[in-house]
Amino acid sequence: MKSDLDTLMQSHNLDAILVIGPGQHNPPMVYLTGGGHLTHADLVKKRGEPPVLFCASMEREEGARTGLTTRNIDDYRIEELLKQYNGDQVQALCARYQQMFADLGLASGRVAIYGNIDAGRAFGVLSALQRALPGIELVGETGDSMLLNAMQTKDEQEIERIRGIGKIATKIIGNTADFITSHAVKDELLVHKDGTPLTIGQVKSRIDLWVAEYGAENPEGTIFAMGHDAGVPHSTGNASDPLRFGQTIVFDFYPCEAQGGYYYDITRTWCLGYATDEALALYEDVLFVYRQVRSQLRLNAACRDYQALTCELFEARGHPTPRSHPLTTDGYVHSLGHGVGLYIHELPFFRLNGPEQMRLAPGVVITVEPGLYYPEKNLGVRLEDTLWVRPDGVFEVLADYPQDLVLPMKS
Amino acid sequence: MKSDLDTLMQSHNLDAILVIGPGQHNPPMVYLTGGGHLTHADLVKKRGEPPVLFCASMEREEGARTGLTTRNIDDYRIEELLKQYNGDQVQALCARYQQMFADLGLASGRVAIYGNIDAGRAFGVLSALQRALPGIELVGETGDSMLLNAMQTKDEQEIERIRGIGKIATKIIGNTADFITSHAVKDELLVHKDGTPLTIGQVKSRIDLWVAEYGAENPEGTIFAMGHDAGVPHSTGNASDPLRFGQTIVFDFYPCEAQGGYYYDITRTWCLGYATDEALALYEDVLFVYRQVRSQLRLNAACRDYQALTCELFEARGHPTPRSHPLTTDGYVHSLGHGVGLYIHELPFFRLNGPEQMRLAPGVVITVEPGLYYPEKNLGVRLEDTLWVRPDGVFEVLADYPQDLVLPMKS
Repeated sequence: MKSDLDTLMQSHNLDAILVIGPGQHNPPMVYLTGGGHLTHADLVKKRGEPPVLFCASMEREEGARTGLTTRNIDDYRIEELLKQYNGDQVQALCARYQQMFADLGLASGRVAIYGNIDAGRAFGVLSALQRALPGIELVGETGDSMLLNAMQTKDEQEIERIRGIGKIATKIIGNTADFITSHAVKDELLVHKDGTPLTIGQVKSRIDLWVAEYGAENPEGTIFAMGHDAGVPHSTGNASDPLRFGQTIVFDFYPCEAQGGYYYDITRTWCLGYATDEALALYEDVLFVYRQVRSQLRLNAACRDYQALTCELFEARGHPTPRSHPLTTDGYVHSLGHGVGLYIHELPFFRLNGPEQMRLAPGVVITVEPGLYYPEKNLGVRLEDTLWVRPDGVFEVLADYPQDLVLPMKS
Repeated sequence: MKSDLDTLMQSHNLDAILVIGPGQHNPPMVYLTGGGHLTHADLVKKRGEPPVLFCASMEREEGARTGLTTRNIDDYRIEELLKQYNGDQVQALCARYQQMFADLGLASGRVAIYGNIDAGRAFGVLSALQRALPGIELVGETGDSMLLNAMQTKDEQEIERIRGIGKIATKIIGNTADFITSHAVKDELLVHKDGTPLTIGQVKSRIDLWVAEYGAENPEGTIFAMGHDAGVPHSTGNASDPLRFGQTIVFDFYPCEAQGGYYYDITRTWCLGYATDEALALYEDVLFVYRQVRSQLRLNAACRDYQALTCELFEARGHPTPRSHPLTTDGYVHSLGHGVGLYIHELPFFRLNGPEQMRLAPGVVITVEPGLYYPEKNLGVRLEDTLWVRPDGVFEVLADYPQDLVLPMKS
């Protein structure tokens, strides 16, 4: 939780953190600033002290809106540094960080780095900085970094934001169901009034319109995958495919707040008009596992145990899993879920071999998303909800929506 | 240009490039793959050979749609590597890159790194990889990297895509003008039918709806800044401010193709109903400089000369500039423009002290955007267009729109 930042820095043995990159669509920066239209910013937080935000003079008012202490990065005369280093931008940027660190009295200790920027720039500039500042140890973490650990437990304000985007997500799923089922049917295809087929691309365009209307964003796109594509978990679906009766459609929707805020993640699987026996059997297996897993979620339990449980349940019903068949592309082929926040995928994860200490701590927000995939049979089913691990031990779906498989047509 | 990639790798003395990160909203990856719903991918291109894309089994079909040679990253058993390194993700990822490089026969030479990922991850994993592979020099470039040099000159296909998003941008600017001027006016404020004022936030929401309707994205938001905010170049404007007669409004709009494709960048300055003499004088100075600069653009000329020219022209009209007053926040306070492509800001830049070899090469796409800012007087004016430096020496605005200052109300 954000309020634990100093404690976490202490336990991770960090004296400061440096967050780099734009003010939007950059989770670490959004987490610490609240977001803002900053082309590029640098934020330094020493342990036990409030963060200091360096931003450009031209963006000073956007910087001020964050409420943080700001400094004008233009005071560090990059043009003169570039002259001094014969136009070598890596060296000039390195020298600028040296000056900034000096001004903040940051001369020793471990400094962890976060924020979305170009990997080459990060490697080049930070390697130069590391060589220039032998008293400081720059720490490049990944996976279970200090900051990702802080971000994985949400405070009430963050929960309300995730709930808010969840309400938008479920409203749009409802709109989509209404939109689809109001179409006429001809030869098992959904058709417009003029008789031309309704395509997946058209459904997605309509979804994006609602996303804009409700003031959200959909930066990662939408999975609306039918038939064979439904059998490939991350296939987004083929825009030109017409919607067809009886096929399984995996509709995985993960919008976020405008300018890269909190995400919500939800999947429903639909069959239009009717489901084949095969699709129905698959759906029932997934729903059974979804319910079993949900009923067994416990505060502070280890995440990996639920991946093992999910494998066990699917295997008992005759499906290959990553435990029984590590590289399988049939059956249950992914993990049970992931954390959700400013990243669509964040801590905790449910890997079979994940660390024992990755747990369902109070404040964590996770997805639970069992699924079954048989691409050769043109079948895929996934059910996914986003849940808040409440401090009182209740696992609360933050925005609910019916899980029915068959969408009956309106006429 | 993309077709120059091998030549540029040669001249930059690079034997290979490694592009890391998601398949969308990640310009280097989009440039080389054409985009696609890949959560994380690694692309390696050796000089003189086609790129190889490593992506997850679950995303194999999205990977295949790129048309590139793909490899399954799940074959590199990250779970086993994590076990081997006691859960240390930096070490496991480093070991995975070692195996990938070995499989590609990449054992020596200079390898440049690109792609948007977390800076800490980049620094941590690549530093470990550098230590593990002494025969290879990992190159972290920034600013005028090899890839940015390739990207700055566009082929005809890229130009058509920029022109396409430009047409959407100008259409939305027209829609916005129509929308605004169809409102009634009460006490110099624009009002809805129920008499409540029309706000900047409402205008922006309408813009986002059109963006979605036309299948584009607006990931960086929109500058629609009035009065004092117009006087601060990157202020995005205050959502709750009502639209008011006579104030300068800087409307800077930079949408991109869906899922992080090519951008367009255009700014108009509007006064609703009428302009004050002061606003009109400022506008005329900006328009004069805009026209002067445009008339003097020449194929292969040095970009920095146009920033000098712009300063000279504004200074002659009595305005402070970055040349006369390096840290000024009054007058002309930024540079003349920037390249536009998969990044909203990319090569070339127009810095006064920029390198002499940064030139208006054939195929470059730039903005020309002189502006004047007097925040204390609640005034700001900027005019911006996106131009293609055609190989025949013509500088073509890719999507035109009238530059009028005053928007007359319809009733």
